[in-house]
Amino acid sequence: MSSSTSVFDASVDFDDLMELIRPRSVMIVGASTTPGTLGHTTVVNVLEHSDFDGQVYLVNPKGGELRGQPLYPTVGDVPVQGIDVALLLVPAEVAVDTLQSCAQKGVRYAIVFTGGFGELGEAGRSVEADMLTLAHRTGMRLYGPNCAGLTMLDPRLGLTFSTEFCNDGRSGQLSRIGLVTQGGGLGRSLMQGNERGVRFSRWFSTGNELDLDSADFIHWLAKDPGTDLICTVMEGIKDGARFVAAAKAAQKAGKPLVALKIGRSDFGKKAAQSHTASLAGEDLVNDAVFAQYGVIRVDDLDELLDVASLISRVGVRSLKRICVYSSSGGAGVLSADKVGEAGLSMATLGPGTVAEMARYAPSYAALTNPVDLTTKALVDPTLARNCLTPLFKDPEVDVVLYPITSNYAASTEGIVRNMLEVARGGAKAFVPVWMSSRRGPAHDMLIREGFAPIYSLRNTMLALQRISRYAQHVTETVDPRVDAQELPAVPPAATPALALPSNEAQAKALLAHHGVRSPREKQAANGDEAVMHARAIGFPVALKLVADGVLHKSEIGGVQLHLQSDDQVRVAFDLIMNNARQHRISPQAIRGVLVSEMVTGGVEILVGIHRDEIFGPVLSVGAGGVWVEVDADVARCHLPASRAVLERALLQTRIARRLDSHRGLPARDREALLDAMQRLAQLFLELGVHVQSLEVNPLVVLDEGQGVVALDAVIE
Amino acid sequence: MSSSTSVFDASVDFDDLMELIRPRSVMIVGASTTPGTLGHTTVVNVLEHSDFDGQVYLVNPKGGELRGQPLYPTVGDVPVQGIDVALLLVPAEVAVDTLQSCAQKGVRYAIVFTGGFGELGEAGRSVEADMLTLAHRTGMRLYGPNCAGLTMLDPRLGLTFSTEFCNDGRSGQLSRIGLVTQGGGLGRSLMQGNERGVRFSRWFSTGNELDLDSADFIHWLAKDPGTDLICTVMEGIKDGARFVAAAKAAQKAGKPLVALKIGRSDFGKKAAQSHTASLAGEDLVNDAVFAQYGVIRVDDLDELLDVASLISRVGVRSLKRICVYSSSGGAGVLSADKVGEAGLSMATLGPGTVAEMARYAPSYAALTNPVDLTTKALVDPTLARNCLTPLFKDPEVDVVLYPITSNYAASTEGIVRNMLEVARGGAKAFVPVWMSSRRGPAHDMLIREGFAPIYSLRNTMLALQRISRYAQHVTETVDPRVDAQELPAVPPAATPALALPSNEAQAKALLAHHGVRSPREKQAANGDEAVMHARAIGFPVALKLVADGVLHKSEIGGVQLHLQSDDQVRVAFDLIMNNARQHRISPQAIRGVLVSEMVTGGVEILVGIHRDEIFGPVLSVGAGGVWVEVDADVARCHLPASRAVLERALLQTRIARRLDSHRGLPARDREALLDAMQRLAQLFLELGVHVQSLEVNPLVVLDEGQGVVALDAVIE
Repeated sequence: MSSSTSVFDASVDFDDLMELIRPRSVMIVGASTTPGTLGHTTVVNVLEHSDFDGQVYLVNPKGGELRGQPLYPTVGDVPVQGIDVALLLVPAEVAVDTLQSCAQKGVRYAIVFTGGFGELGEAGRSVEADMLTLAHRTGMRLYGPNCAGLTMLDPRLGLTFSTEFCNDGRSGQLSRIGLVTQGGGLGRSLMQGNERGVRFSRWFSTGNELDLDSADFIHWLAKDPGTDLICTVMEGIKDGARFVAAAKAAQKAGKPLVALKIGRSDFGKKAAQSHTASLAGEDLVNDAVFAQYGVIRVDDLDELLDVASLISRVGVRSLKRICVYSSSGGAGVLSADKVGEAGLSMATLGPGTVAEMARYAPSYAALTNPVDLTTKALVDPTLARNCLTPLFKDPEVDVVLYPITSNYAASTEGIVRNMLEVARGGAKAFVPVWMSSRRGPAHDMLIREGFAPIYSLRNTMLALQRISRYAQHVTETVDPRVDAQELPAVPPAATPALALPSNEAQAKALLAHHGVRSPREKQAANGDEAVMHARAIGFPVALKLVADGVLHKSEIGGVQLHLQSDDQVRVAFDLIMNNARQHRISPQAIRGVLVSEMVTGGVEILVGIHRDEIFGPVLSVGAGGVWVEVDADVARCHLPASRAVLERALLQTRIARRLDSHRGLPARDREALLDAMQRLAQLFLELGVHVQSLEVNPLVVLDEGQGVVALDAVIE
Repeated sequence: MSSSTSVFDASVDFDDLMELIRPRSVMIVGASTTPGTLGHTTVVNVLEHSDFDGQVYLVNPKGGELRGQPLYPTVGDVPVQGIDVALLLVPAEVAVDTLQSCAQKGVRYAIVFTGGFGELGEAGRSVEADMLTLAHRTGMRLYGPNCAGLTMLDPRLGLTFSTEFCNDGRSGQLSRIGLVTQGGGLGRSLMQGNERGVRFSRWFSTGNELDLDSADFIHWLAKDPGTDLICTVMEGIKDGARFVAAAKAAQKAGKPLVALKIGRSDFGKKAAQSHTASLAGEDLVNDAVFAQYGVIRVDDLDELLDVASLISRVGVRSLKRICVYSSSGGAGVLSADKVGEAGLSMATLGPGTVAEMARYAPSYAALTNPVDLTTKALVDPTLARNCLTPLFKDPEVDVVLYPITSNYAASTEGIVRNMLEVARGGAKAFVPVWMSSRRGPAHDMLIREGFAPIYSLRNTMLALQRISRYAQHVTETVDPRVDAQELPAVPPAATPALALPSNEAQAKALLAHHGVRSPREKQAANGDEAVMHARAIGFPVALKLVADGVLHKSEIGGVQLHLQSDDQVRVAFDLIMNNARQHRISPQAIRGVLVSEMVTGGVEILVGIHRDEIFGPVLSVGAGGVWVEVDADVARCHLPASRAVLERALLQTRIARRLDSHRGLPARDREALLDAMQRLAQLFLELGVHVQSLEVNPLVVLDEGQGVVALDAVIE
């Protein structure tokens, strides 16, 4: 029943869900003879509104019969052994007992619609724990509780209490899109997307995800031949590894996964121990993981429908070069603004295109982009067709964007009909944007003809950006198996034992062991020794007081920087000792000075790795130094990661641009930084699960060829 | 006819527009007897669909009559002298001649609907120039050309060719909102906002704005007793001073001005001469000016309607503390996410509120925010009413947000009706969000009852943010007359004559004159002189080679920094001379060294002022140094500006946070920075219009009490 279907990660198992999704027998516990109740609607959904020809068993303590089927008083009374799916509409108080009976009856999947468990607090969580124990003990899988069930529309199977199921999938052609949501409310909202032409053909509402979770259904949809595109609304991710494995399965199957992840509000709630954990805030980790595995993240329900609608119409391709066609000058300008702001580009029309359009267009038409054929084209369909056809063939154009600002009833309908005739034959993505508050026949025709509009320019640009970014991700991503296994090549080194949290010296020693160097430094007891060390280290150097109990060295004149010569070192040594005496540091406490290589002029970077509760090791890279939280200029990636993925994270930061040569400043050693990121990633993975975080801040990136230097490091 | 109505700026005049908006006589040139033509529709709009009882004169070369009115063959044939408004529907070729006849006929306002002028290129611009000369010579004012005219709905007056005018304002109660758009297309789109309950009662479509421009109509609406709120779509701002004066008039009248400014695409097109002009890119200046004068900027048509709808319902007030009420757990969480992301807050309900709700709510209801009364409240209107009433009284709540995710037809209608009963009596802003693609009776009822929904959480948050920000602006802004005149108090100083562009020394001298100091520095010919100057300046110092023709001093070892003592200065002097010799600098070219105060450890800021083409002097402040373009961390304000406005600009930058004390680093001298900004602003204004820009970069902000130092300055 359960099999390891992930080729990427042998530790993640997915159920094949065969008997759940194509059951031969269904038992409804809590079937009701009273119309309008959930127990009645569920029976009707299975018996009347589904294409289901398997066995149905109804259970109700009162007995009797319903629609020609006997009502068995208890689960035990059902006269067969081995049932594929049981649907539970029983009070929360009797859920565990009922599940117990189901397991004895040989039920393979139990869908618990009932709510009132973990979502209400501690008592409910305790009942859930009992349910899960039962499931693990018996092998019966649980779906829910607190869920709206399973809605398959092709073929029809409604294992759900929803009164809407009877209408689901009845209007217009189904889209080859699967939907996985935890809650029923947002899921139902998306199902109503059928009104705008997005008609999900499978919907799994997984509720509290006690056992089966969203990853199971995403994985199933990745393998489902009836699905080309997967959408999901996730309230929480229970198991990061399973989610990543499911996302990879979708990626491997060439099916985009569009996710609305909600529940960001406890953002930064946890007291952070290191910069890394604090900066990596839970939701930013989601962002990084989604981007890394090609999940298309959207921020609201309408945006999910926009992306789903557009992908299901035009597929996955780059949609960056936009040609705007409008007969409103203002709409053309506004559209061009939005194209520019979104980082997309206004296509430069090919000369052939312009020449061909010019053969038909009025002399005062605008044949640059935005294209405006003037109101003449609105009343002359032949003119419009002749002019627009070349646009839809221009190799410089990815998208013909058509903002419809106002609805003038019949005249708009005629114009839109003309547009569709051209668009239908063209190879370009035709994207109408309905910007009027007045809907009507032209709007409905767009949907009916399969060209569902988006409702604002902003949402249109978001959808085009997201699809283009995904198309680029698909192009850039090599086989994810290779990607995951390409570990950094560092010299093998036995990792010394480490007490946690480490002190700076221990951490630096470990870093050195892995090829990440710290400043050269050596302790000196007197001026001559200091000069000797300075010569060995190389000028310029810094001198720092070493004295027991003295933490704020610089405040008492205990730090002297930029020392260029023997003389300067000697003078500085004496000055430090003098300052220490003046600040009444006991002579017994004074150990001497640390002579340290002066590291100046580099770029201060932070590289941190922490263990995220959901996803495990996450590397953060960005602006380092003391202003880390203020700058908040950090990007992340999930480990293990290839050098290309690490570099992509680095390039997302503003500070990365400071590594380039600029106005006489030299380029910095970017390759050494990437090396160090790989080495630190490898070190963290080797240190094992008892280590929660490793942070180097600042890691100074020197001029090209000079490498990097870790000025401070902490391992916790 | 024209009077100076701006009390803020005596140089800006606004026409009172009396005879345009309440004309006693209207002449239609190009009146047509053919139904369906613009010339016919315009006549019908005036004669049949307007509440107009003045004189109407129709002109058509063919003569005859139309609807009982004679058609005069020419303007000259009209048998009266002195006509308030002429409407021109004549070909572009005869526009100037027709205007000439109108002027002779004593027409006060000529509305030119005809297009085909400046928008088509040079020839059209030349005709426009002739039209404008005629207007200036005769005193006849021009409206248009290339415009959709004027639509007044209360009382009705349609000086427009639009076939939609007959229906405008016929459905539902008019809103007290005026609309000014240049183009007709986007304006008509907004007029169709009546379908979602935003029913503009005046609309001016101003076209090419040859003479009268948007500022005239914004100013008129600011004084119009029938208008509470002004919306505008601007393609270009012809005259910054007039726009600012109109915006100030609206502000003074307590009427929010909501603006969609389009045409951002030539963003950064101009080759920039200084950082300031480049960083201040045209559209960012618009942003700054709008924010400074309280203009609520929106980015798309739907956002304009959202803000207009909400303000016209709830007025201007802070809408930051949100209580979400939803029976979908997911919708509650998603709403809370959006509230947090927008920088708004989830209200903490008062204990009294919770106690009162608990008297009626089911035990498992969520009485924290988001509030979820469970499905029980959906079916029991009394329960819902009892529970929700206290919410609408809670002083901790500004907004009750009600996300409607799905539409279940009649049941949703009943629930929404219950909500409205409570909301209508409550003092809170009730904001329903319609998130389903399925509209229907509940949706329409919301609009009919005056609670027009917004269509996404994102748009809702944007509207709440914008209105709250405007409410704060109103609170913070003192009388704008004071604000504009509060010039920086700096010691009076005669500004020396200046050749442009200035060299560094001249600019620094001028800065010094205005109280903005540069590093102390003095030239020395030998080591002894260098030591003497160093002592006078104070250690540490820097030494820089001064040699004719040597630009890149540091590359040949000509710069020595951090010199702490006489000895170090002497050594450094010799080293520099030695390096110069080794790099074969001719002894004749060597002038000595510049001994300069070492300025270290401060925060590098850029302060620049440039003369914007539209708005005049604009100050930019932000991250300075060599990374200015990369950081792009600059904010702007329009000059003259009060210290409070300058400070608000500074606080918009990321770098401003580096002025605070942080992890042992001292606070920087923010007050001295603000002083310097004021002094530089005053200097720029004193320098007069031949100076295009003044830029100090970096201006180093030292520790608190230590002031600021201008390390480099350019005046152009």
